[in-house]
Amino acid sequence: MKRAVFFVSDSTGITVEAFGHSLLSQFEGVEFDIVRRPFIADEEEAREVVTRITESGKTTGARPLVFTTLIDPHLAEIVQTADAFCISYMERFLAPLEEELGMKASHTVGNTHGSTNSVNYNKRIDAINYTLAHDDGVTDRDLNEADVVLIGVSRCGKTPTSLYLAMQFGLKAANFPLIPEDFERGRLPECLRLNRDKLFGLTIEPERLAQIRAERRPNSQYASLVNCRQEVAKAEQMMKSEGIRWLDSSRKSIEEIAATILRELQLQT
Amino acid sequence: MKRAVFFVSDSTGITVEAFGHSLLSQFEGVEFDIVRRPFIADEEEAREVVTRITESGKTTGARPLVFTTLIDPHLAEIVQTADAFCISYMERFLAPLEEELGMKASHTVGNTHGSTNSVNYNKRIDAINYTLAHDDGVTDRDLNEADVVLIGVSRCGKTPTSLYLAMQFGLKAANFPLIPEDFERGRLPECLRLNRDKLFGLTIEPERLAQIRAERRPNSQYASLVNCRQEVAKAEQMMKSEGIRWLDSSRKSIEEIAATILRELQLQT
Repeated sequence: MKRAVFFVSDSTGITVEAFGHSLLSQFEGVEFDIVRRPFIADEEEAREVVTRITESGKTTGARPLVFTTLIDPHLAEIVQTADAFCISYMERFLAPLEEELGMKASHTVGNTHGSTNSVNYNKRIDAINYTLAHDDGVTDRDLNEADVVLIGVSRCGKTPTSLYLAMQFGLKAANFPLIPEDFERGRLPECLRLNRDKLFGLTIEPERLAQIRAERRPNSQYASLVNCRQEVAKAEQMMKSEGIRWLDSSRKSIEEIAATILRELQLQT
Repeated sequence: MKRAVFFVSDSTGITVEAFGHSLLSQFEGVEFDIVRRPFIADEEEAREVVTRITESGKTTGARPLVFTTLIDPHLAEIVQTADAFCISYMERFLAPLEEELGMKASHTVGNTHGSTNSVNYNKRIDAINYTLAHDDGVTDRDLNEADVVLIGVSRCGKTPTSLYLAMQFGLKAANFPLIPEDFERGRLPECLRLNRDKLFGLTIEPERLAQIRAERRPNSQYASLVNCRQEVAKAEQMMKSEGIRWLDSSRKSIEEIAATILRELQLQT
């Protein structure tokens, strides 16, 4: 069973895609064939999308699913003429929200992922730059500016999580590897102790860690299961004794790790 | 006018937040006070959210808005008892979709941003690692593996865009600065010419570029408006003569740039 799915938007289409995926992910075993149609700006483009939807229904033999967020009611109407199952959450929820808030919606395109809000935009770019400059413990300069400092053994997921926190939430996320020198010393480096309230630890199952490290350095001491077990045990021991909150990243997505950190550190974004 | 807004989810809450923001962004002039409540897992937590919502309504003197995606109908029911304006898109759209697809939804939590799909997960981590290793032209090794190669003058937005393409779409995105040596030579470096079909250019208004560069190196030749004008003109000239598609990043969000690149290069994700 295969279904064509169209994400149709007058802007990037990123929100309608997230929305659509969250619904579609509830239907396992159906194969969805995704078509993105962002930046639909005029009648001609809207009609072209309708043609494409109708054709794809004929090809697959099943009515396509269309998720759409067109703000312009005229373009929305055109797309609704396609022979498809259409879900338009704007249309469905905007009128009730207008009533609840006692005001009219602005009906301007691109508010969600447009760059209209330059304060947020700059904050986010600054956060990404900060995070890149403070990846993998390369510097402790300006560490007091960090919103969060991730720690954990090498390759436990600190870098992708830091970048996601910066990109999605505009947070300055530094990260520091816990290395054998830290374990020998038996305590965290001074620069981290000074920022204790911003620390969050990641840990990982040793088997998973060994697998990830082996992709980088096959057959190395670094990637050996014995070494991974020791490092993980020592890192967890250190985080416990220093009273640092931490989670196991092994079976979590980047989003789940990031959302957990936000909640645990009560970070404002 | 101030309204409390709650994003309530049994998973990360990232999708429901994107969804809610896209609706709320249509109401300019209203100040929204955002509260995230992800990972709601049991009755106790659901009831605690209800208490919090009700309290916040009393404090602000206006009925809070609640956007929710609880898969468990029992937890969803509890949250709906709050004195609030509730929007639950799962509840609204899941039943019609079940009918359309002729099957029951799985009602499993965490499908959207869970790490259940390990193929996608690994693809994405690989893309992030690749993108970090191929930032700012540091290497042309394995450039044939790239899905997209961004080019443009220094500080025109290549790095955040590359990271977004990797993070959001799992694309391997390399990026190379166009530098004075390239302009003197009058053509692109060989490694880029060999990957011409993957190239996409970013350009920027010289005034905006001068401003961004001045934050890094105030009063430098590098940041001077005269120099920025020259570099941008030469870069655009080169992209034209080489027949490379490009866009002006000055007034676009990272999402808009990324979605445009996806469409222009017809990238499959």
